[in-house]
Amino acid sequence: MSSTLPTPPFLAAARGETPSRTPMWVMRQAGRYLPEYREIRAGVDFLGLTPTPELAAEVTLQPVRRFGMDAAILFADIMTPLEGMGIEVEFQGGPVLPDPIRTAADVARVTPLDPETGVPFLLETVRRCVAELPHEVPLIGFAGAPFTLLCYLIEGRGTKDFVQARAFVRSEPEAARDLLDRLADGMAVYLEAQARAGARALMIFDSWIGLLDAPLFRALERPAIERIVAHLRPLGVPLIYFPNQGRHLYGEVAGLDIDVMGVDWRTPLSTADAESGHRYTLQGNLDPSALFAPDEELDAAVDRVLAEGRALTRGHIFNLGHGIDRRTDPEKVARAVERVHAAPVRDTQPMGAH
Amino acid sequence: MSSTLPTPPFLAAARGETPSRTPMWVMRQAGRYLPEYREIRAGVDFLGLTPTPELAAEVTLQPVRRFGMDAAILFADIMTPLEGMGIEVEFQGGPVLPDPIRTAADVARVTPLDPETGVPFLLETVRRCVAELPHEVPLIGFAGAPFTLLCYLIEGRGTKDFVQARAFVRSEPEAARDLLDRLADGMAVYLEAQARAGARALMIFDSWIGLLDAPLFRALERPAIERIVAHLRPLGVPLIYFPNQGRHLYGEVAGLDIDVMGVDWRTPLSTADAESGHRYTLQGNLDPSALFAPDEELDAAVDRVLAEGRALTRGHIFNLGHGIDRRTDPEKVARAVERVHAAPVRDTQPMGAH
Repeated sequence: MSSTLPTPPFLAAARGETPSRTPMWVMRQAGRYLPEYREIRAGVDFLGLTPTPELAAEVTLQPVRRFGMDAAILFADIMTPLEGMGIEVEFQGGPVLPDPIRTAADVARVTPLDPETGVPFLLETVRRCVAELPHEVPLIGFAGAPFTLLCYLIEGRGTKDFVQARAFVRSEPEAARDLLDRLADGMAVYLEAQARAGARALMIFDSWIGLLDAPLFRALERPAIERIVAHLRPLGVPLIYFPNQGRHLYGEVAGLDIDVMGVDWRTPLSTADAESGHRYTLQGNLDPSALFAPDEELDAAVDRVLAEGRALTRGHIFNLGHGIDRRTDPEKVARAVERVHAAPVRDTQPMGAH
Repeated sequence: MSSTLPTPPFLAAARGETPSRTPMWVMRQAGRYLPEYREIRAGVDFLGLTPTPELAAEVTLQPVRRFGMDAAILFADIMTPLEGMGIEVEFQGGPVLPDPIRTAADVARVTPLDPETGVPFLLETVRRCVAELPHEVPLIGFAGAPFTLLCYLIEGRGTKDFVQARAFVRSEPEAARDLLDRLADGMAVYLEAQARAGARALMIFDSWIGLLDAPLFRALERPAIERIVAHLRPLGVPLIYFPNQGRHLYGEVAGLDIDVMGVDWRTPLSTADAESGHRYTLQGNLDPSALFAPDEELDAAVDRVLAEGRALTRGHIFNLGHGIDRRTDPEKVARAVERVHAAPVRDTQPMGAH
């Protein structure tokens, strides 16, 4: 039966097929800029929301209902699975580790993840979302990339440039490799479990990878990403890797066996396409601050991204180039979605003579 | 008399001449990683240090004495001159504005700077430094770039990605241009005053410019930088512009009438050279986290930057790719300086047949 249904636009674009319309979703689309999200958060804090499948599923679905997004993304934090790997995580505005990793010996505290016992609530959230989502709107499962998780594990909280974490990978390269392997293995089974529970695409967020130069990326993070990708490839779901602020790394990313690369707002999609070898569907990259511009300028900014997207070699998934800001007016998002969906997927071909 | 003295290595490199050795200094070299700095700070907080010329000059000179740096950089904060432009600034770990700019009308609160009355203490610090520095070690005067200052003026404090500031420049483009012009004019006379007091090079720090995409940089910041540069050019001192995290902007920077471009640690100097049109001496770009590596790896990292530097078209000033971290061991800095100074300035030419 399902073979008679058309391929959802998001999945078509991710696979390099021509979608019926340019698919769009927005990073952090389930969030505080939505009144209906704030309503739920009034009754429960962030810490209580993720482990409550009924509520986590509800906020995951909200932006799909309101805007007609072409994908839902699971509501969770990149640190969520670490609690099932022996790491205590608190949330105080952002994730805070009472007992960060500071020495090579500390690395052994990071233990393998068993998703069924480590994150059962999250798999239940996936099942609830999938049961409610229409066929044409896939759920994206996600995880943090090993280096990005390492940054938090070592610093103990978000910082401006994670110098301590970068110092650790330089002063303790063997321990760093061990830690990245443990994180890669944990995220591999975590993502696999999300796919088996019904997620139809998987995304790896490398929020802080832009802090590494190319040689360190090649030596440390690329093998860790390859390890995750090799584990997930047999599942047959599209894989998305987002090397945030990774303009200087696209040439290194080019070798990865992924389907989609996320692009932040700093680099034109055409440049990212060329530097990553024209191999991937690209996902991005409207500057989130464009949603604060007057309508006319917002439209122009959306059109610029759409035009870049149409010229891509493999395909385009429209998104922001970074998570949406909590002060964003939802009406601006609605306007952008409408414009993206109304736009032609491909440039009109010049008419032939016959 | 001074014509018989050799050109200081820093100035030679900045002007595209061959220096007697590769000049080196370190961003934030006067700072908390130095015990002698912490000793002074034990008696006075940051807020009290900048307006006290005797102490500010002392900490400016400390790294020159300890390491034999090839340049001193004035101890001050990029927000310091704004207090002479009608803006109240407090320091709580970093700069905090009790009354940030939030509307177009607020922009009028930013008034012209008269350095003699607005920052007299700072000009006195410059004079004291210059009186004590040997001929071969120039003092670098500096200022924040207009967009970077705008970020703080609008957000009121440092944030991760200054979305509110970027939203302002998009929603109030005219007011943003007005604000950038006021800041450019203020920084132009501020830098000029530093040069007239004895600073022998001037540097513009654009710490947050990496947040702008190329079209916004072209429309907003480049004209503001050009305005400053046009004002300073007749002074005849080398001008340095540091577009931090600006890899995607080097092509736009290429048109500026500056002498030196600062490069952060993410981009190889060779790439920065090519993308900025081989026009500038480059300053950078050892990853500050390399100073936490074991000696052997630190040496290798220094050598990689030196090798890139020797291959540059115009010249190289060795520096970190970002400010030095306060947890850095000064012995590592000493080791790096020694290695840089011992290295050949140019690759040895193959011997001819005669």
